[in-house]
Amino acid sequence: RRQAFRMQALVFDGALRLEQGRAVPAPAADEALIRLRMAGICNTDLELVKGYMGFSGVLGHEFVGEVVECADPAWKGRRVVGEINCGCGRCPGCLGGDPRHCPERTVLGILGRDGTFAEYLTLPVRNLHDVPAKVPDEVAVFTEPLAAAFEVTEQVAVAPDARVTVLGDGKLGTMVAQVLASTGCDLTVVGKHDRKLSFLRGRGIRCVARSDWRADGSSDVVIEASGSAQGFAAALEAVRPRGTVVLKTTVQGNSTLALAPIVINEIRVVGSRCGPFRPALRALEAGMVSVEPLVDGRYALAEGVAAVAHAGRAGALKVLISP
Amino acid sequence: RRQAFRMQALVFDGALRLEQGRAVPAPAADEALIRLRMAGICNTDLELVKGYMGFSGVLGHEFVGEVVECADPAWKGRRVVGEINCGCGRCPGCLGGDPRHCPERTVLGILGRDGTFAEYLTLPVRNLHDVPAKVPDEVAVFTEPLAAAFEVTEQVAVAPDARVTVLGDGKLGTMVAQVLASTGCDLTVVGKHDRKLSFLRGRGIRCVARSDWRADGSSDVVIEASGSAQGFAAALEAVRPRGTVVLKTTVQGNSTLALAPIVINEIRVVGSRCGPFRPALRALEAGMVSVEPLVDGRYALAEGVAAVAHAGRAGALKVLISP
Repeated sequence: RRQAFRMQALVFDGALRLEQGRAVPAPAADEALIRLRMAGICNTDLELVKGYMGFSGVLGHEFVGEVVECADPAWKGRRVVGEINCGCGRCPGCLGGDPRHCPERTVLGILGRDGTFAEYLTLPVRNLHDVPAKVPDEVAVFTEPLAAAFEVTEQVAVAPDARVTVLGDGKLGTMVAQVLASTGCDLTVVGKHDRKLSFLRGRGIRCVARSDWRADGSSDVVIEASGSAQGFAAALEAVRPRGTVVLKTTVQGNSTLALAPIVINEIRVVGSRCGPFRPALRALEAGMVSVEPLVDGRYALAEGVAAVAHAGRAGALKVLISP
Repeated sequence: RRQAFRMQALVFDGALRLEQGRAVPAPAADEALIRLRMAGICNTDLELVKGYMGFSGVLGHEFVGEVVECADPAWKGRRVVGEINCGCGRCPGCLGGDPRHCPERTVLGILGRDGTFAEYLTLPVRNLHDVPAKVPDEVAVFTEPLAAAFEVTEQVAVAPDARVTVLGDGKLGTMVAQVLASTGCDLTVVGKHDRKLSFLRGRGIRCVARSDWRADGSSDVVIEASGSAQGFAAALEAVRPRGTVVLKTTVQGNSTLALAPIVINEIRVVGSRCGPFRPALRALEAGMVSVEPLVDGRYALAEGVAAVAHAGRAGALKVLISP
């Protein structure tokens, strides 16, 4: 029955294209069918289009939507956001309630599972979170990337008097900066774009232009969110001996760098990926983090190829897609 | 007066050579003059001879010696080992009692300070530790590298049921393995040399030949002590998601590797260098760690060039030098 229904979807299969007649996915017993309300384009989507992860299918992992079909009728009609890692449900991680590192996981729009740049998507109901009524779609769509920002404070205890440097003023960097600013720490953001740095300065955050910045090996914590292959080496220069570098940037392929400084200065490097949704939703509801100024463009799904092109322009911030 | 005294020393200044008439160093007010009893050759010495750190001077940082001159007469005649980092005494690290990361430090035989492959050396008295009477020179000379092994447990809490892999069966790997075995953890050493692995097996430690080993991403903690530029990539394959890689190997120049797995699997990488001397001396006194089987050769200082050549042979373990 379901196979009769068709939808629009933005598909990557070596090339990015709008597919008009893609089958609406059929939810499994533990899944909900969700009608898209709004999706966001992430840098990871841009990397996937370059071949990262060898992904093929419907792109996209940031979304807010409405449950339209579910085995549990209590979910129907609810406005939700959803965690993107779908686990096997049987491994120690999944049994402990965290599928983020399940070895058999699929990941929404990233690994073995169609994503959110489509009229409909499916996710296990255990991945869903209700969106508070006062949080509009344009804000709720930032839950997933904001959760990734909160992963930093989930992994690293940032002392309230720590010297912290965020490398990067992109979508993730600006959210990481706002999360860290709320700890009271001595924060500096290093970025390239006047417009983004002005936004952060307006939030009371110290900003330095990349061209004026010199790494001085004095930061207790450096968050590398530059999106650049050169960012890690800069982070290693910025951090103090025995300090911590949080690595957020994923780049395809190999990087070339000197590892000896990690050993000599006994640096801690912490890889950081997906984060907790609940603090992100609380922060958005409380207005603790400002995201609406980060919206750079809004596109209809039918204009999805143009939307991805916009998101790929130098200095672009968040580009949103609606059905 | 001091300048009249001359000594033999093994000097590197672009080439390695025995110098016959080097001036005996004059101790500063806070230093002791130490007559060498025995020195050990470390892999770092072999790297220095290849140009690492741009070092020039008397090589060597592992030693046991006797204080022959000191402003504080209480030190005279005592048999000592010595920590190798000499701090400024004024920075926050030094004031906190730890000069290991002082930005102005000199390091014995490694950075801006003549080392131990000589008849005499100087060190600040605050760097010195008495050697217990029952610990012979051949054992005491392992204090510094054993301290570097204890740095692992100073930095990382190794749970008694953790799955731990040590990559490397060299001088450092065999000592790290013995320190970790004492935690009760589920330990595997991956090495290349039958002789070294047999020694560890004799101590009840599980060993796997490098050629038979397959990284399976299941280790809670991996200690990279292979001394190889490829070791870090192997460690990233061996560690479980959210596990810890302790990086002990220092290699000169750049390495090329994929950083994305660090982010995707949220690995923690901890650089690890010099460690605490007191637990090393306690372990040697208690016989908790066996070091004498690791001695591969003994040379007179006059044969120092041959000693370094011996230490540089594939599979060589500790080579000792006496005046």
